[in-house]
Amino acid sequence: MRAGVRRWALGLEYDGSRFCGWQTQPGGCGVQDALEAALAVIHGGPVKTVSAGRTDAGVHASAQVVHFDSLHTRPNSAWVRGVNAHLPRGISVLWARSVSGGFDARHSALERGYRYLLLNRDVRPALLAGKVGWLHGELDLAAMQQGAALLLGTHDFSAFRAAECQARSPIRELRQAMIVRQGCCVVFEFRANAFLHHQVRNMVGTLVWVGQQRRPPEWVGELLASRDRTRGAATFAADGLYLTEVKYAPGWGLPTGGGIMPVLPLTL
Amino acid sequence: MRAGVRRWALGLEYDGSRFCGWQTQPGGCGVQDALEAALAVIHGGPVKTVSAGRTDAGVHASAQVVHFDSLHTRPNSAWVRGVNAHLPRGISVLWARSVSGGFDARHSALERGYRYLLLNRDVRPALLAGKVGWLHGELDLAAMQQGAALLLGTHDFSAFRAAECQARSPIRELRQAMIVRQGCCVVFEFRANAFLHHQVRNMVGTLVWVGQQRRPPEWVGELLASRDRTRGAATFAADGLYLTEVKYAPGWGLPTGGGIMPVLPLTL
Repeated sequence: MRAGVRRWALGLEYDGSRFCGWQTQPGGCGVQDALEAALAVIHGGPVKTVSAGRTDAGVHASAQVVHFDSLHTRPNSAWVRGVNAHLPRGISVLWARSVSGGFDARHSALERGYRYLLLNRDVRPALLAGKVGWLHGELDLAAMQQGAALLLGTHDFSAFRAAECQARSPIRELRQAMIVRQGCCVVFEFRANAFLHHQVRNMVGTLVWVGQQRRPPEWVGELLASRDRTRGAATFAADGLYLTEVKYAPGWGLPTGGGIMPVLPLTL
Repeated sequence: MRAGVRRWALGLEYDGSRFCGWQTQPGGCGVQDALEAALAVIHGGPVKTVSAGRTDAGVHASAQVVHFDSLHTRPNSAWVRGVNAHLPRGISVLWARSVSGGFDARHSALERGYRYLLLNRDVRPALLAGKVGWLHGELDLAAMQQGAALLLGTHDFSAFRAAECQARSPIRELRQAMIVRQGCCVVFEFRANAFLHHQVRNMVGTLVWVGQQRRPPEWVGELLASRDRTRGAATFAADGLYLTEVKYAPGWGLPTGGGIMPVLPLTL
């Protein structure tokens, strides 16, 4: 980093259904485009941001973290209230912190957490359209939990990786794969050091097949071992997926916790 | 009712931010317009609906109830799956039941329940924009609860009634006025035999003034007694308001419970 340049970390909440994904796009429809345009107003010139997780089109975040550099000294509030005043509906900066130049939102992240909200009822979602995945018909939760347990640990996750995935290695450490029923929603919680492109949506699709008893729980382990994406279920809809946590070493002094999101639905 | 005509009751869930209110509009932007157009396809001709609550523009429903008449015999599933296939994103029929001709979604309703979700944090909502009201700054919840208690019972609610309200009488029986904090949200629960136009949003605005200590709790009682709308707070935003329950006598045999909605937010 050049002398006098200061690095900033921001916490973000966004509604992925309003954007074509995190990453900047020629048409300017990325979350990154909207954020960089708003930051440029406060910074007084172009700003480049790096995010902890490059969420796909339709994927939400209650706790995305980004960093950027600015030569100017601005109070934290300018990067929160000032930037929010220039952001479109659907993105908010939750917090801003000055960090040392060694911090990198992507590479310093120790762990990511994603949540998938799956509405499991006969009728499609209306109030939370675009905010929950949807599936009618019975799901065998115990079978899904058995299958999910087979994914835990450090593995080559090629069988759950999108063809377009740019990661150098397909090895990831999955530390949590929890599935619980909350009323008419099935909630998936995943934690890993990092995730491959489409990994969560491919794991959800696979576990749904197990829940529908189209495959036995053991198949999840066989699929993982095969490292063959073509043998797995279709990538599940982006609608219900939320980036809910990015963990950093406490030494960076960043706030923990994220924004708000739909959590506990009423039952029907 | 003519001979051979059958009356149907439907349960609805809708995202009010996508419509200009319940009531039919010349431009066709009402929830009623979208529903009647979809019902007409299944019925095979024009259909008129009557709802339990005529929600304003931006007001959501997780449990609206409507009735309509049809000469044709159709299975319940036709009025649910069939109609949903012709409804736009943002409305779903949750259930359908054949009812006797004496049933009226509006006049047979014994009680309505509304919930208001108020996001109380520094930063505006992003993920739930349009789905929660928003207020930054401290709120004195105990004072709000004291004020709300003064509204309970049977009163002339003219001080909380919109100028456009078409109700014959301003007398309503308020049976519940509960305010709780859930993380960074303040949740209001109101139940009454029926509500006047804008009554809930005017009560929320008034109680927010008490929470901000702009007025003491006793002022709520004085305002109620004055029957003077011009002395109260501004009508609060529609965004966080949900029609969550309509109660009928059990004899009608209608399902209880509603759709899904955002409920318990994570804290920031």
